[in-house]
Amino acid sequence: MGTTDSAAGSAGWIHVREVGPRDGFQNEPERISTDDKLLLVGALMRSGVRRIELTSFVRPDVIPQLADGAELLDRLEPVPGVSRSVLIPNERGLDRALEQRDRFDEVSVFLSASETHNRKNVNRSVEESLDGLRRVLARAGEAGLRRVAVIATSFGCPYEGAVPVERVAEIARELRDAGAEEIGFGDTTGMANPRQVGRFFPALADALGPDVELTAHFHNTRGQGLANVLAALDAGCRSFESSFGELGGCPVPAGATGNIATEDLVSMLHEMGHGTGIDLPAVIAASREAQRVIGRPLGSHTLVAGPIDWNARA
Amino acid sequence: MGTTDSAAGSAGWIHVREVGPRDGFQNEPERISTDDKLLLVGALMRSGVRRIELTSFVRPDVIPQLADGAELLDRLEPVPGVSRSVLIPNERGLDRALEQRDRFDEVSVFLSASETHNRKNVNRSVEESLDGLRRVLARAGEAGLRRVAVIATSFGCPYEGAVPVERVAEIARELRDAGAEEIGFGDTTGMANPRQVGRFFPALADALGPDVELTAHFHNTRGQGLANVLAALDAGCRSFESSFGELGGCPVPAGATGNIATEDLVSMLHEMGHGTGIDLPAVIAASREAQRVIGRPLGSHTLVAGPIDWNARA
Repeated sequence: MGTTDSAAGSAGWIHVREVGPRDGFQNEPERISTDDKLLLVGALMRSGVRRIELTSFVRPDVIPQLADGAELLDRLEPVPGVSRSVLIPNERGLDRALEQRDRFDEVSVFLSASETHNRKNVNRSVEESLDGLRRVLARAGEAGLRRVAVIATSFGCPYEGAVPVERVAEIARELRDAGAEEIGFGDTTGMANPRQVGRFFPALADALGPDVELTAHFHNTRGQGLANVLAALDAGCRSFESSFGELGGCPVPAGATGNIATEDLVSMLHEMGHGTGIDLPAVIAASREAQRVIGRPLGSHTLVAGPIDWNARA
Repeated sequence: MGTTDSAAGSAGWIHVREVGPRDGFQNEPERISTDDKLLLVGALMRSGVRRIELTSFVRPDVIPQLADGAELLDRLEPVPGVSRSVLIPNERGLDRALEQRDRFDEVSVFLSASETHNRKNVNRSVEESLDGLRRVLARAGEAGLRRVAVIATSFGCPYEGAVPVERVAEIARELRDAGAEEIGFGDTTGMANPRQVGRFFPALADALGPDVELTAHFHNTRGQGLANVLAALDAGCRSFESSFGELGGCPVPAGATGNIATEDLVSMLHEMGHGTGIDLPAVIAASREAQRVIGRPLGSHTLVAGPIDWNARA
């Protein structure tokens, strides 16, 4: 009737990438000290998570919260088996990241499937973004880095409405051909629904073939984050991104929550018999610590409720 | 790519019972005035919801918040097509409710599948509860009322751990034989997971036969409420209970959220193409009003994010 914290569950292994240190911290209005970040990231890396996005090499004046990326990488103790990822917006960001080449393992690059969202986000057309990402991916490959490409607004755009799955597949094929070993599909403003998701992943798997890993990045904007995870699981997706404490948000719609919480995702996966390698109480402890550092209650449900205790005795 | 507020969606009709006025209000520490309740309940009844649980005929000293049940029924304007339900704990409660016989349409009775939870909740064994409920159900049937029986801790008990599905089926058969036309299964402390739910509903449908309606009552304790809804839908369940604004909670685990939010449920169902008859913006407006009355932010996600706008144009 459910397992707890299985290291390798009977229902199969699921990849979880913790994105809180980048995607979560980036959205915090108050500066988090590098010392506090090192404390939290260290706790997460020792929780059994195998993939973690640490920071972003954007311009420091654009996102001051992540201006300490180089120092963070420099001071962070590696943990064997944990793949460290950094977000790279452009070639200049890659130049800066490569100065720390031996301090991370993966790059993430990104663009939006919708023209309007891409222009509002990075002030380029999708084609212009693809041109830039091709150069970044090529150079990251030469540097021996694993390459992840994330397509935002894959399930809908707040400015354009529906985004055709054919368009997402077209962009994903370009990224695959440019060297991406993994492609993430972002539900940036929480517009995905389980029926749509159940059709999306088989279509993308068909379009991309077996050599690319497909990752789902859902938001909990309207409370449907884990329902979309379930639909993606049922549709064959085996890789997800989430943020400890439910850190992170999205400016559209205003005030809405963003990423699904890692502890909520892991609780559900473990209860269903999937393995993730993650120690759920350790992630909850890291989120509790983040709550202390940030100074406000976070949105994660399992942070409040705790893990299920199937061995409870009155 | 998703519909909005379809009155009768292409993917089929789903029954939604709004339980906020009973299950939600009951958990509020501050007394809500009868005038405010009438305002909120009236708004909900005009939102297109077809089933609503209005109050409970428990002893006023046990739940003072619902001590105005008779007055509420007396003053509430009926809305054609809306089935009004009241919670009945025992025969004395039924006696009081029947004084207002023409002011409601359904009774809900309840017990727990777990002995320990039932004893902590109503200070009786499960067998003693069943004896009492048989008499209540018989008399409610004689009064021409539709009869709903709810089995709490159907998916797990915080005091006993796993609850065998065979035990839940056994209790459900007793309730069916005692006259219940609908049986609700409560995930009282949010222990259900989608894999378990996917096995549960076919097993119960087998055990109970086609003449009983099965209803799922999930909590969002660990963020999995809508994922469990999806699993129940996939397993053939067509009836759900939820609470506007995500009102309501559960004392175990301490501080945890309870019911899934009606607007989150309805948003997901409509996006998937299901019909509910409910006008989503009207429910959101009722929740916003509840937030004002209660004076604190409520947990519903769609209340913050708003409905999805597929026709957005930048």
